[in-house]
Amino acid sequence: MSPAEPQTDTTYELLYWPSIPGRGEFVRLAFEITGTPYRDVSNEQEDGVQEMTSLISSKSTSSSPLFAPPLLRVSHPGAEGKLVIHQTPNILIFLAGKLGLDGGNNEASQAVARQIMLTALDLNNEAHDTHHPVALMEYYEDQKDEALKKAIDFRKNRIPKFFGYFERALKANDSTGHGKYLVGDKASIADIVVWQVLDGLKFAFPKEISAREKEFPVLYGTFYPAFKDQAGIKEYLASSRRMKYSHGVFRYYPELDRQD
Amino acid sequence: MSPAEPQTDTTYELLYWPSIPGRGEFVRLAFEITGTPYRDVSNEQEDGVQEMTSLISSKSTSSSPLFAPPLLRVSHPGAEGKLVIHQTPNILIFLAGKLGLDGGNNEASQAVARQIMLTALDLNNEAHDTHHPVALMEYYEDQKDEALKKAIDFRKNRIPKFFGYFERALKANDSTGHGKYLVGDKASIADIVVWQVLDGLKFAFPKEISAREKEFPVLYGTFYPAFKDQAGIKEYLASSRRMKYSHGVFRYYPELDRQD
Repeated sequence: MSPAEPQTDTTYELLYWPSIPGRGEFVRLAFEITGTPYRDVSNEQEDGVQEMTSLISSKSTSSSPLFAPPLLRVSHPGAEGKLVIHQTPNILIFLAGKLGLDGGNNEASQAVARQIMLTALDLNNEAHDTHHPVALMEYYEDQKDEALKKAIDFRKNRIPKFFGYFERALKANDSTGHGKYLVGDKASIADIVVWQVLDGLKFAFPKEISAREKEFPVLYGTFYPAFKDQAGIKEYLASSRRMKYSHGVFRYYPELDRQD
Repeated sequence: MSPAEPQTDTTYELLYWPSIPGRGEFVRLAFEITGTPYRDVSNEQEDGVQEMTSLISSKSTSSSPLFAPPLLRVSHPGAEGKLVIHQTPNILIFLAGKLGLDGGNNEASQAVARQIMLTALDLNNEAHDTHHPVALMEYYEDQKDEALKKAIDFRKNRIPKFFGYFERALKANDSTGHGKYLVGDKASIADIVVWQVLDGLKFAFPKEISAREKEFPVLYGTFYPAFKDQAGIKEYLASSRRMKYSHGVFRYYPELDRQD
């Protein structure tokens, strides 16, 4: 779908924590790469955060309970009520079919796009757990010792396992994707999520990733720069809508990075 | 779909670690509740485990790389090759559409079924991390101190947060589901995953769950027993195909359970 032809009249709204890329970033990238208009409620509207937190509150009277952000709100003109859904992979699967990001027209390639996306989201969660291995709602400073142990395992064992899988997926699709796409010959939810996690890891573990890049030449040599250069993404990354990493999923704690 | 009418001629095979329910159990339950014939390769075939591990090996030449089990292999008579996919939620979404477990015929209810399923799988992962908070491939005994801290947070903060969400979801669907179904008026992938996680938690944290059951009367009072009593499930749970919990996702370490 070209940027000039969004889905007619459907309104998409992202509700997430403001000021950080976080898990909302996967959803933003799906809109940006397809040129689909969307509202980023918490960042564009003064009381946007309150709107989001009231939706996920246990007191909310929404027709289906919402566990945690990101939330996607969809409305159609004339339709009664609005659909509000949660869970990052659920939102991406929902959007994938509408925005042409589902990996192609057959169930096999769609399943491949979903499984790569889900595996990259697992890596995203594991990256988060390096600074919060014990308790989500407590401070990093109160779980630093455990974080150090977790980060060592993450860097030594988990990063190469996941990167090896992504590298093999790119090679398996090389005849159509030429190292630029994980499924088929255009961007899908798989590319969006893998790229964002690669980018976040460069921020959080700069020494580790710098040392690893050459082990995965297709992933960091071809795929990563090609995605950044795509229509929609290039403009987005240069815009103020692309927020800086700080204290979200990806955090830079030098002590958790490679030490040599 | 009634148990007597499986999809014509499609062959389904589950490839997972043998002898434990684990993440393979979600897939088994999808087959059992719909009366769909399937092969449980690692448990039914002598070299089944080797077949699975060779598929996930980084040396595998499968058309799409496979990260980790469970794997689903699907073949159609006459079709060339077989489709092999991974990632538990991906397998369940794939099967949901074919076996009538997708939560209904509209995109809104399907999205709700997916988001509840995904949230219950997150709880499953967090339950696993209580005994492996630091490193997946190391022994529990080598991360016991961290496990104790993680388990306390899990029991005090995470269990009530997730259970509250499931309870609200059951109540939101009460007019059609009567506390027995999370989406619509029949079982879906949401019910399968939530039930299996509830059941596993009863094994892993018996005192904690026993103390919590009354806080969530619909979840443990209506939904949990009703699911066990359904056609397909009742027979399955009484059969030798239903494996005992031991050293998989759900493990019973008394020191991690509630102490009073």
